[in-house]
Amino acid sequence: MLNKIVIATSNAGKLREIQHLLAPLEIEVLPQSDFNIPEADEPYFTFIENALAKARHTSLHSGLPALADDSGICVDALQGAPGVYSARFAGEPKSDARNNQKLLEVLREEKNRQAHYYCAMVLVRSPEDPQPLIAQGIWRGEILRAPRGEGGFGYDPLFLDPASGKTGAELPMEIKNSISHRGLALRDMLQQIAQLHG
Amino acid sequence: MLNKIVIATSNAGKLREIQHLLAPLEIEVLPQSDFNIPEADEPYFTFIENALAKARHTSLHSGLPALADDSGICVDALQGAPGVYSARFAGEPKSDARNNQKLLEVLREEKNRQAHYYCAMVLVRSPEDPQPLIAQGIWRGEILRAPRGEGGFGYDPLFLDPASGKTGAELPMEIKNSISHRGLALRDMLQQIAQLHG
Repeated sequence: MLNKIVIATSNAGKLREIQHLLAPLEIEVLPQSDFNIPEADEPYFTFIENALAKARHTSLHSGLPALADDSGICVDALQGAPGVYSARFAGEPKSDARNNQKLLEVLREEKNRQAHYYCAMVLVRSPEDPQPLIAQGIWRGEILRAPRGEGGFGYDPLFLDPASGKTGAELPMEIKNSISHRGLALRDMLQQIAQLHG
Repeated sequence: MLNKIVIATSNAGKLREIQHLLAPLEIEVLPQSDFNIPEADEPYFTFIENALAKARHTSLHSGLPALADDSGICVDALQGAPGVYSARFAGEPKSDARNNQKLLEVLREEKNRQAHYYCAMVLVRSPEDPQPLIAQGIWRGEILRAPRGEGGFGYDPLFLDPASGKTGAELPMEIKNSISHRGLALRDMLQQIAQLHG
């Protein structure tokens, strides 16, 4: 039922991973850079509504089914902040370094370091798709007091995965993809796509 | 973290089932009839957005966390219709009998009888909850050419569960709750609530 999907991302690594995982289903995965797509608004205060808006926007401007995700880090001691504002926590322009610095500062006196990454992922077959596929993933961990590791992106250098004892920036990409919020959401989504294909 | 939840339903059976399943977590489950809650709009063309709107509406008017679902039947040969319009398929006022009759009529000449029930379930802790809990359930089956059974509701008399060979209206309530779209979504939701309680 699905032959082609546009991925609403400009992240080359994310695109390659999705292409790899969808190859067995013979679904062609196209980057949004193949199309002339204006930047999407993300006006909502929930991940799910932003992911839905991004997927619809990409489908509208490409004329094809589209997959989008919206992700962020939710810190218990901050009542879930920065959440959907993770990428802009330290203001514009977006900067991982300044965001990490700000997170360290606001948590300086805080003993409760519990946090989780969350990913909402949506696939629409058209902008008016009445039944978008929805997948989610959660990765629980702790916010360190200093960054560790050079890999990953976002808050990964501060995000400790308790099971491995490594931060998201220390884990090899393949390991991270198997346990991360986005990896879990993507695998859930792939199962749903495979069921569509019967 | 959750002590009380208002359930956005006026269905006594649904309420009892949820109360039963949440009892071990020591969460008090209140019916929306305990509050003065105006009828919610369901203006969206997706289940997930309607469920979110209903949960926020109930939370707003009760001042408490609220759980809502939006469900319907999606018929392959009708490109997913009646979908979110399942309850009003044959127009107002809502009538299961007329809806079932209409479904039989529109599918009279149709060989492809594949269909599924879908349920989107949302829990918000407040109307502004930045991270609603989201659960889904799908129940796949076939649309019969004549109704069978007296139980259930909605399209159950026409909906054949292939595994049991019974319609949703023939299955005992407890069995139906263990395999239905709403039962699956509710169990998924309960797991997420239990994780919140850590």
